[in-house]
Amino acid sequence: MKKIINDPGDIVPEMIAGLTASYPQYLKQIPETTAVVRNDAAFKQHAKVGVISGGGSGHEPLHAGYVGQGMLDAAVAGQVFTSPTPDQIYAAIKAVNQGEGVLMIVKNYSGDVMNFDMAKDLASVDDIKVESVVVDDDVAVKDSLYTQGRRGVAGTIFVEKILGAASEAGLGLDDLKKLGDAVVKNTKSFAVALHAATVPEVGKPGFDLKPDEIEFGVGIHNEPGTGQEKLPTSKVLAKQLIGKLTVEFKDPKAHKYAVLVNGMGATPLSEQYIFMGDVLNELHAQGLEASFTKAGNYVTSLDMAGVSLTMLALDDPQWLTYLNASAHTVGWGDTDVKR
Amino acid sequence: MKKIINDPGDIVPEMIAGLTASYPQYLKQIPETTAVVRNDAAFKQHAKVGVISGGGSGHEPLHAGYVGQGMLDAAVAGQVFTSPTPDQIYAAIKAVNQGEGVLMIVKNYSGDVMNFDMAKDLASVDDIKVESVVVDDDVAVKDSLYTQGRRGVAGTIFVEKILGAASEAGLGLDDLKKLGDAVVKNTKSFAVALHAATVPEVGKPGFDLKPDEIEFGVGIHNEPGTGQEKLPTSKVLAKQLIGKLTVEFKDPKAHKYAVLVNGMGATPLSEQYIFMGDVLNELHAQGLEASFTKAGNYVTSLDMAGVSLTMLALDDPQWLTYLNASAHTVGWGDTDVKR
Repeated sequence: MKKIINDPGDIVPEMIAGLTASYPQYLKQIPETTAVVRNDAAFKQHAKVGVISGGGSGHEPLHAGYVGQGMLDAAVAGQVFTSPTPDQIYAAIKAVNQGEGVLMIVKNYSGDVMNFDMAKDLASVDDIKVESVVVDDDVAVKDSLYTQGRRGVAGTIFVEKILGAASEAGLGLDDLKKLGDAVVKNTKSFAVALHAATVPEVGKPGFDLKPDEIEFGVGIHNEPGTGQEKLPTSKVLAKQLIGKLTVEFKDPKAHKYAVLVNGMGATPLSEQYIFMGDVLNELHAQGLEASFTKAGNYVTSLDMAGVSLTMLALDDPQWLTYLNASAHTVGWGDTDVKR
Repeated sequence: MKKIINDPGDIVPEMIAGLTASYPQYLKQIPETTAVVRNDAAFKQHAKVGVISGGGSGHEPLHAGYVGQGMLDAAVAGQVFTSPTPDQIYAAIKAVNQGEGVLMIVKNYSGDVMNFDMAKDLASVDDIKVESVVVDDDVAVKDSLYTQGRRGVAGTIFVEKILGAASEAGLGLDDLKKLGDAVVKNTKSFAVALHAATVPEVGKPGFDLKPDEIEFGVGIHNEPGTGQEKLPTSKVLAKQLIGKLTVEFKDPKAHKYAVLVNGMGATPLSEQYIFMGDVLNELHAQGLEASFTKAGNYVTSLDMAGVSLTMLALDDPQWLTYLNASAHTVGWGDTDVKR
């Protein structure tokens, strides 16, 4: 294993220290935690519901890279591929609370759901109202290694962007919870891996694949999917993954879509752009319309090679407005020029 | 070799097609080329010098990802690791020319320098005034595989950002050329690879390294550096790379710096943030100040694992203003919140 680190045990605190030192205009560390909170001048300038997220590390820029005006107010980083602890989540809740309540965006893994729930209990003692939205967009498998039900993966960034924009626009806690649940229901993802990730504490790839094989339906923690298949061309893969997602929508042609091609960490942007081109051609051929598109490394799995495809059925035109709304973060990118 | 592509021969046109389909609000293809030009509403709304760049593909988001208001007006993509042809560069010159002339930012590789020069000759026939700025920031080696003199690498994005902002601010062609040359002189980079890139047409990594070895001073086309060394800790690597760069500045403490930690493609952001933290700590210990910082995958080498460090000595405070100025592109990120 070759990694640019100091000690495997120090990865997360050192990563957070480096991130906040690089981008102090967006975020700062919450003392004695590996959580970060907004550090921009607009933070807390008007009362609003706080929006936080978090989870195991190794998926950067998720979640800390999405902290900033118009998206998350704070993010909590657990150890690599490990849920953050309730006390750290609670520290983030307190750091963003302005009396309007706090919404937590949680990826559906048993440890995360449990720890975020415990943080909610801690907050209730302080009379802070907390709700949570649980993201389970991965259609590949049910009840995987660390999950009851479906896993939360790349579609999480659509949920974070929409709820962050809605909170900035002034929605109350109950409305945000309803909105989040509706968006999650309409968000579907599927991933393939060409090469597994190497967890630093383990020191070797999480699974082996033959030179022409891919893992179909892989999770973002090296969880197995539906099995190994031969690596197809990008065009064929686009058709396969679209098929996995569209069966999840009752009437696929009834909506427009937000579409995300997400690199898992070690896959060049050139391949992601080729794949996105094939996805958009195939959607067009099927009479499906993408009105919001993004391709890049947004929810990674350390040095895993592979891509995921996410489709969000835009049930309400307001969702597209929220996706396009201004956000100022390290990871989401420019929001001034709209499609 | 596992890559998400269709045919190795179609990588560049399909990548450009996918990129423009994903981000039509920023860029469009110049017909019958693999060059892209701005497609935002502000393009050509006021007369200014056109700023273009280009080079071999495989370094995404460079250069097409930096096309947009406040940065590049057009970018030309050659085949993977291969200079674009003069006719394509000339097409980009014509696409951005508004009568104020065109500035070309060229990375210092023999093929690129020759082909951009030929494009300039073609443009002179049409009475389009063209100047070029040649970037040679890589301090590792002189006269490498494809280069006379030093190579142009990650520091190129600082040159593109500063010249793009200066052109947007109204500087004329001659002043831009002078500014560009001055910025290049103050931009120094050094890279290490933990794993070589695999060129699709070749099908295997460009060189082999032992499990504990890194290539020191590697180029962005798998060019060898100064030799193999044992992978040090991030802290030691930070000290080593800073040492390679600071010797290039006459009086290192006379300036503040813009600092870029750049991932080569397959290195997780977590490692880049850790390394950036160590770089900033070491700079501070040496009494050197970073007033602009960026960490991420900006100038990649396909699926190479590794990082580069770039330091730009901010000889003129205006350069920092240009670095912080608004830019709306796929790859540079948010510019609304300043450090």
